Amino acid sequence: MKNIVVLGSTGSIGTQTLDVVRGLPDRFNVVGLAAGANLELLARQVEEFRPRMVWADVDRDGLQLTRAGRVSPERVPMNLMVQEPDVDLVMVATTGRTGLEPTLAALQLGKAVALSNKEVIIMAGELVTQTARDHDAALLPVDSEPSAIWQCLRGEPQPVSKLIITASGGPFRTLPVAEINAVTPEQALAHPTWSMGRKITVDSASLMNKAFEVIECRWLFSVPFEQIDVVVHAQSVIHSMVEFADGSVKAQMGPPDMRLPIQYAMAYPDRVPNERLTRYDPLRYPSLTFEELDTARYPAFAMAVAAGRKGQSYPAVLSAADDEAVHLFLDGHIGFGDIHRMVADVLDRHEPTPANTVEAILEADTWARRQVDAAIAHR
Amino acid sequence: MKNIVVLGSTGSIGTQTLDVVRGLPDRFNVVGLAAGANLELLARQVEEFRPRMVWADVDRDGLQLTRAGRVSPERVPMNLMVQEPDVDLVMVATTGRTGLEPTLAALQLGKAVALSNKEVIIMAGELVTQTARDHDAALLPVDSEPSAIWQCLRGEPQPVSKLIITASGGPFRTLPVAEINAVTPEQALAHPTWSMGRKITVDSASLMNKAFEVIECRWLFSVPFEQIDVVVHAQSVIHSMVEFADGSVKAQMGPPDMRLPIQYAMAYPDRVPNERLTRYDPLRYPSLTFEELDTARYPAFAMAVAAGRKGQSYPAVLSAADDEAVHLFLDGHIGFGDIHRMVADVLDRHEPTPANTVEAILEADTWARRQVDAAIAHR
Repeated sequence: MKNIVVLGSTGSIGTQTLDVVRGLPDRFNVVGLAAGANLELLARQVEEFRPRMVWADVDRDGLQLTRAGRVSPERVPMNLMVQEPDVDLVMVATTGRTGLEPTLAALQLGKAVALSNKEVIIMAGELVTQTARDHDAALLPVDSEPSAIWQCLRGEPQPVSKLIITASGGPFRTLPVAEINAVTPEQALAHPTWSMGRKITVDSASLMNKAFEVIECRWLFSVPFEQIDVVVHAQSVIHSMVEFADGSVKAQMGPPDMRLPIQYAMAYPDRVPNERLTRYDPLRYPSLTFEELDTARYPAFAMAVAAGRKGQSYPAVLSAADDEAVHLFLDGHIGFGDIHRMVADVLDRHEPTPANTVEAILEADTWARRQVDAAIAHR
Repeated sequence: MKNIVVLGSTGSIGTQTLDVVRGLPDRFNVVGLAAGANLELLARQVEEFRPRMVWADVDRDGLQLTRAGRVSPERVPMNLMVQEPDVDLVMVATTGRTGLEPTLAALQLGKAVALSNKEVIIMAGELVTQTARDHDAALLPVDSEPSAIWQCLRGEPQPVSKLIITASGGPFRTLPVAEINAVTPEQALAHPTWSMGRKITVDSASLMNKAFEVIECRWLFSVPFEQIDVVVHAQSVIHSMVEFADGSVKAQMGPPDMRLPIQYAMAYPDRVPNERLTRYDPLRYPSLTFEELDTARYPAFAMAVAAGRKGQSYPAVLSAADDEAVHLFLDGHIGFGDIHRMVADVLDRHEPTPANTVEAILEADTWARRQVDAAIAHR
């Protein structure tokens, strides 16, 4: 039985994490839940999973987290919640920069962290992975592509010769390139294979998200950028591949259902049946295709990987500027094509600093967000 | 440095084994070579690899294995060759029943056996795997599909939920079913993806070979028949898959090149670069397809799996009758459709015996071959 804390419990990954728990009640015990503003769902989750700790970003009188007085968890801030002695595993399913400090706090106590909030590893890849190593703490990928690579690496000697990350290509894979700049948020949110949160769905349409995964894999698996390829695979069935030194390639496959990588991270190293998970049937996907990544179609990709390669505070700026720009797009303030242009402008103006402390990283993050705000204010 | 013996060195797997050695001269030292009747090639191999032992099935004065007196290996029968103290690994790349006794002789001394001669494990699956366990000897798959499964199982907990063996479907995957009975040996030998020996190529056209792999995997990996599926995958790029308890599926992929699984078995547990091996590029195979196995098109498949499930001496009879029938087909004596009918007739007439000794197994084998001979004599 693992005691878990779920940060971001009302989001897409948070609710799916709790669905995994629902199917494996003998394996996981929810001791803490933290959410943003969706208090109604959080209250229902508290009632169902009975955590002893809870947190919400908004402060509303008494948090209305009890129904008929049956449940009354203690209010504990995320940074403290993850440090409680009985916590075995922290699922970091927050978004943006929110997850950084709780992730570091948990790792510093040697606790296992299942990391879905990928901005954390983009902005602070070196710091987070070094903290995990220093405290012998497990840093477990949740994203389907890094999870696939992690599964393929299981039992295999390092170093590998290549990681091959697959990309669905998103909703604009076949749209005429000239039309992509003018797409609406509704079009960008209509992902062909994955059901995810809004911000990551937009990042998946621009392939910004794929560049984030490249950076994530570079840190999680200590593989140099030169040995990480991306290939477009529209069906999202092969979640990624690893080429070993002898040229043999292993792939991890499954229907596009985040609950499997979520459970894999939570139950690791065990593999346990869970009737709530969708099984893979090769005949349901009679053709799996591969295409070269078209860099003209997805200008965000190369720009973002370049920022990852430059290192220092560039990836934090990349992540923060993109976060702001995507929300401006979702709110109708800028066009889809403006996202990568704004991010590129901010990166161009950035004077890099070492990204070896939380303060330095958050400072770069704040700087980048202000640049985006200023740019929009001047339009 | 591993000292290896290659039994069947002039056949398809034997020559590819030596090609792997050619690329990794610091890893493998050939101490023995054994072949059938191709003395000319054997002589060239002796000259190149300088084994200290050699064997050929045909007896010709002095074996003409030396050229200009530079090389003069000792003639040592296969059963004794594999038992020499300096032998680390035996590649059994013979065909038919020939490999059974050397395989057992090597395993009994705890030596690693890379088994390509799959009839050995069909006829004597229980005896061979039990012998390996009793003497703590490694029995290493060479066939690409079992090798793929073995690679996918690496580092993973047992029991698994399913093995999914892929089948190219052979040259008659799209031929009208009514025309299959009348195909010529030339048509049956024109395999669309793999270059292999003649007998196994005919077995691949009928999918008899795929049933053999099902039986092989049942013994090599101790997975019950009910948990072994076969799916048609025409490109032969995904060599097989494993579904784990949580539903996650891993696949091993690569171009159809036997040298990779050969090297994997030889170098295990190491993965080493070898410039002679073809690398996989997903873009070279832009579409990977899956189809259900059409049992009406491939009647040999279900019949052969049923014989495997019945166990006892049935699989030995299956293997021997098929061996005889395929050679009759290749020599123009019977039609392609007659192969599985003759094998089915022999199986129907068989009175099973326990297959727990070499003698019992060879007796069943001999009985089955005589039945085929008698059937052809009466036509």
